[in-house]
Amino acid sequence: MHFATTDINNLDQQTRVHLINSLSGFKSANLIGTVDAQGKENLSIVSSIFHLGANPPLIGMIMRPHSVPRHTLENILQTGQYTINHVNDEIVEQAHQTSARYDKDISEFLAVGLNPQYKPNSIAPFVKESKLKIAVEFKSSQTIELNQTELVIGQITDIYLEDDSAYCQDGFLDLERINTVAVSGLDRYHTTTALTRLSYAKPEVQVQTIPVTTMKK
Amino acid sequence: MHFATTDINNLDQQTRVHLINSLSGFKSANLIGTVDAQGKENLSIVSSIFHLGANPPLIGMIMRPHSVPRHTLENILQTGQYTINHVNDEIVEQAHQTSARYDKDISEFLAVGLNPQYKPNSIAPFVKESKLKIAVEFKSSQTIELNQTELVIGQITDIYLEDDSAYCQDGFLDLERINTVAVSGLDRYHTTTALTRLSYAKPEVQVQTIPVTTMKK
Repeated sequence: MHFATTDINNLDQQTRVHLINSLSGFKSANLIGTVDAQGKENLSIVSSIFHLGANPPLIGMIMRPHSVPRHTLENILQTGQYTINHVNDEIVEQAHQTSARYDKDISEFLAVGLNPQYKPNSIAPFVKESKLKIAVEFKSSQTIELNQTELVIGQITDIYLEDDSAYCQDGFLDLERINTVAVSGLDRYHTTTALTRLSYAKPEVQVQTIPVTTMKK
Repeated sequence: MHFATTDINNLDQQTRVHLINSLSGFKSANLIGTVDAQGKENLSIVSSIFHLGANPPLIGMIMRPHSVPRHTLENILQTGQYTINHVNDEIVEQAHQTSARYDKDISEFLAVGLNPQYKPNSIAPFVKESKLKIAVEFKSSQTIELNQTELVIGQITDIYLEDDSAYCQDGFLDLERINTVAVSGLDRYHTTTALTRLSYAKPEVQVQTIPVTTMKK
């Protein structure tokens, strides 16, 4: 099956959106918690969070120019803070429902039935039901000129892991232990099954399986 | 378990890399195929490919300033073309092995045992063993000032799906049908199991499960 440029251009808008969204592969599923300057809460699911670097610890996300999470972006720019909360298999429907276009004065926490949770040093709310929560300080925002999407970059200030047993001795987190889900396309959610963890690759050396050994901090 | 900023700063470099790389959630696993101006092939696994927009069909990736895929970036800048090939569960070890620091004159295809495949209109090689292959035209590259990583953006020109049965009637691709894998952290690979596909969310409306119905083009 081959789609050339003209085939892609000739797809109706919705079909094209589903197809192109499927191409990058599996995506992360995260809930972004924010408040506006008056303290009104917002919660929005995004599948565009990506790792940007470990030192400093930076994390990026893409926000569309005129899409649902616009309140999120406004809040981030107003307060300089947000939280990232892993979606797990028990809260998939509630997480997905946050993508509905709620009015600005409605808290998605209340509307979908998730609980805001506050922690020291962060004015942005976390999601109580999430097992991996990250406090992020806004660092920069830039418009991607090719399609007017917004690249938002933040620095990780605090990490809350609600299940110690997911922490491995070398820093690696066992995301299956906390039931983090993956997304494909716009709207499909998946659990995962570990295939293997592989050693650092070197030329002419056979890679080895690394055991996933969790421990307490 | 709580890591504050000082805890993160005090982690040894390798532990920090594993931890921070685990935070974004599941990531895509793709092989980037390129050639240099002399036609020498390069193949490199990346977990940083992300969806950027459907119209025009844009896809982004992050490349580190001094890391393995630097040959990839040089080739992309020289030729303006690259391919993105989904990693499936049968080629995980070979795909991972492409991250070894091979000399510039060594083809990772040959070194790891994957087959280059050429198609019309693309000078960059595809991975024969991959079941979803994308031809991409380089559009822009910009340095993220916060950590000197490079954001590379390309436009999708051709899509090759080797298993028609993964194509759904609304454009969605069933990535499980083609055994695409997900990555967590630096080095762990996962297969997936579908939880659910959910309808477009609207306020005050209960989301519904969408059947995944595949069809021929």
